[in-house]
Amino acid sequence: MSPDQETLAWLSLGLIAELTPTGFRKLLAALSTPESICAADRATLARTVSADVAAAIARGPDPERLDAAHRWLEDPANRLVSFADKAYPRLLLEITDPPPLLYVKGNPALLDHASLAVVGSRNGTQQGRSNAEAFSRELSEGGFTIISGLAIGIDAAAHAGGLAASSSSIAVVGTGLDIVYPARNRDLAYRLAGEGALVSEFALGTPALASNFPRRNRLISGLSRGCLVVEAALKSGSLITARFALEQGREVFAIPGSIHSPLSKGCHLLIKQGAKLVESGRDILEELGATVHDQGTTIATHDEVAPDNPLLAALGFDPLDLDTLCRHSGLTPDTASAMLLTLELEGIVSRLPGGRFQRVR
Amino acid sequence: MSPDQETLAWLSLGLIAELTPTGFRKLLAALSTPESICAADRATLARTVSADVAAAIARGPDPERLDAAHRWLEDPANRLVSFADKAYPRLLLEITDPPPLLYVKGNPALLDHASLAVVGSRNGTQQGRSNAEAFSRELSEGGFTIISGLAIGIDAAAHAGGLAASSSSIAVVGTGLDIVYPARNRDLAYRLAGEGALVSEFALGTPALASNFPRRNRLISGLSRGCLVVEAALKSGSLITARFALEQGREVFAIPGSIHSPLSKGCHLLIKQGAKLVESGRDILEELGATVHDQGTTIATHDEVAPDNPLLAALGFDPLDLDTLCRHSGLTPDTASAMLLTLELEGIVSRLPGGRFQRVR
Repeated sequence: MSPDQETLAWLSLGLIAELTPTGFRKLLAALSTPESICAADRATLARTVSADVAAAIARGPDPERLDAAHRWLEDPANRLVSFADKAYPRLLLEITDPPPLLYVKGNPALLDHASLAVVGSRNGTQQGRSNAEAFSRELSEGGFTIISGLAIGIDAAAHAGGLAASSSSIAVVGTGLDIVYPARNRDLAYRLAGEGALVSEFALGTPALASNFPRRNRLISGLSRGCLVVEAALKSGSLITARFALEQGREVFAIPGSIHSPLSKGCHLLIKQGAKLVESGRDILEELGATVHDQGTTIATHDEVAPDNPLLAALGFDPLDLDTLCRHSGLTPDTASAMLLTLELEGIVSRLPGGRFQRVR
Repeated sequence: MSPDQETLAWLSLGLIAELTPTGFRKLLAALSTPESICAADRATLARTVSADVAAAIARGPDPERLDAAHRWLEDPANRLVSFADKAYPRLLLEITDPPPLLYVKGNPALLDHASLAVVGSRNGTQQGRSNAEAFSRELSEGGFTIISGLAIGIDAAAHAGGLAASSSSIAVVGTGLDIVYPARNRDLAYRLAGEGALVSEFALGTPALASNFPRRNRLISGLSRGCLVVEAALKSGSLITARFALEQGREVFAIPGSIHSPLSKGCHLLIKQGAKLVESGRDILEELGATVHDQGTTIATHDEVAPDNPLLAALGFDPLDLDTLCRHSGLTPDTASAMLLTLELEGIVSRLPGGRFQRVR
């Protein structure tokens, strides 16, 4: 089955390297549809984009690449998702620079599922990879699809954790979707194509270019409700993703580690700048959980408050000072002070200004 | 030399176990001086404190303990510092429950020096002890006297670090100052008496009672400008000290660690609750440093901005969008995007709403 005219127009325009997402969006605003952009002459196009870009569009894409793109689209696992498509992820429309066209392999419905980015260093430690997998598994089980970048190290562990539980995983890649990069993750990419999804904004045939990876990172955060950084050096792609997440108004989470580990320094910097320190997937679910499904457990389980504690009996639920408490309970000031501190630490008693105490539960 | 009447009165009242700091302060407010409290009859005292406390004051202290206290005071290293004393530390007057009387061994002038509490677990790890010593040394060199609790583990390492640099260290202990607890830290206590100070609010002869240690912790934080928690379990004395610090309006700092280390869980809890994550003494000095002496170095040293970067040349200091930047610089969108991200990460370029960029330095 050959693609319809609209799909053909999206495919063609996606292959024009000179056309930035911004230029593409401006042309869509000016000329309404991709077909009318393809049909427009240079002079019309040059009213909206530069002469060079107008010329490139008028020339059209390389016929061989266009043919290859047609063949790619014949595989039922593959799909184009454009601005005009109901399957286009809503969260991505909120970002500054949304790509007009996404190439998707796998399950496109996952794109609009509640998602979390889990990212980190290619050189992650064994503990870091283990943390990435454990957090991702817990988050996937808790209702969040895990989004990462298909890199080796932390990314691969995050995908594995997401795939292992109920909400699966999406890889957002920096190459054309007909290329698997890095080759070491070929098996993982096949699993994602079958049970999750792979997504790219880059035209089919786009090789692994260093310059495309930071740009790709804005989609990892843009598709996600929040971004967890597992292990990251001070100047790293993961921090770029976290910065995008902040700009896009997403929550940023970071796992702490030893102050002597270079791969914790990025996480510590983020925490200093306001990211939430997290020790488990549960910490993240609690932060975002109210809008997902109820986890069915309370946030903290307290031991039952000792019913025959003489100090609590004397205190009741009204504020009292230490001297009065001692008179009421018959305890010495030292014993009462120590008991109050224990109760305070357990969240049963609160210390008020002026040296008074109040039972709070 | 026998003590004067006022000192004798402070000493006597300090030995009345039934008299709480609050009761003591109320009596001072009612009767002005410690001599007049000692001279008052039970009925007068009972107008301000309970009948039991009034009776205990009227009975007076145990003569043997009073004699021992006189002898202790004959040692020129020892000193009483009362509310009425100019040497009484000003910061301590800000707390809810300041002790009317402090026993001091060593240099009383240190009590009013800019100080930081450095506390942590008795079971601290080797790395934790090493961190405690390194942070304390850096903070002491930076102008802060290190205050801790003379316990084994993190406390002892903190004192050692403070003593090793220019601003020395103070131990606030939970026993009478004629007792060294724990005995294992006897050598450290002698060093503190000679080069720093030891402080207690507990009467001479007070043994090591578990109930006194939490109460002692409010003085560790109360004497300090901030409180650093090095390693602490979730329910621990260090968290009590940190909670006192927060109540007293002091900054709380915590060193992060592995999420799998029980001794980092207390620090992580504090950070989640708003404590500042710190990776070096410098982080703390920068936070508090403006009011201490200038460290003579800038907070961050930036590499000089590359003067011949073609993108920066095209960007100037006005906001521009990517298309315009590409036109001006002759760079491809991909190359320009990658360079912008690098510059953004280096803090040279800022991303503005609407996809524009601005050079910020």
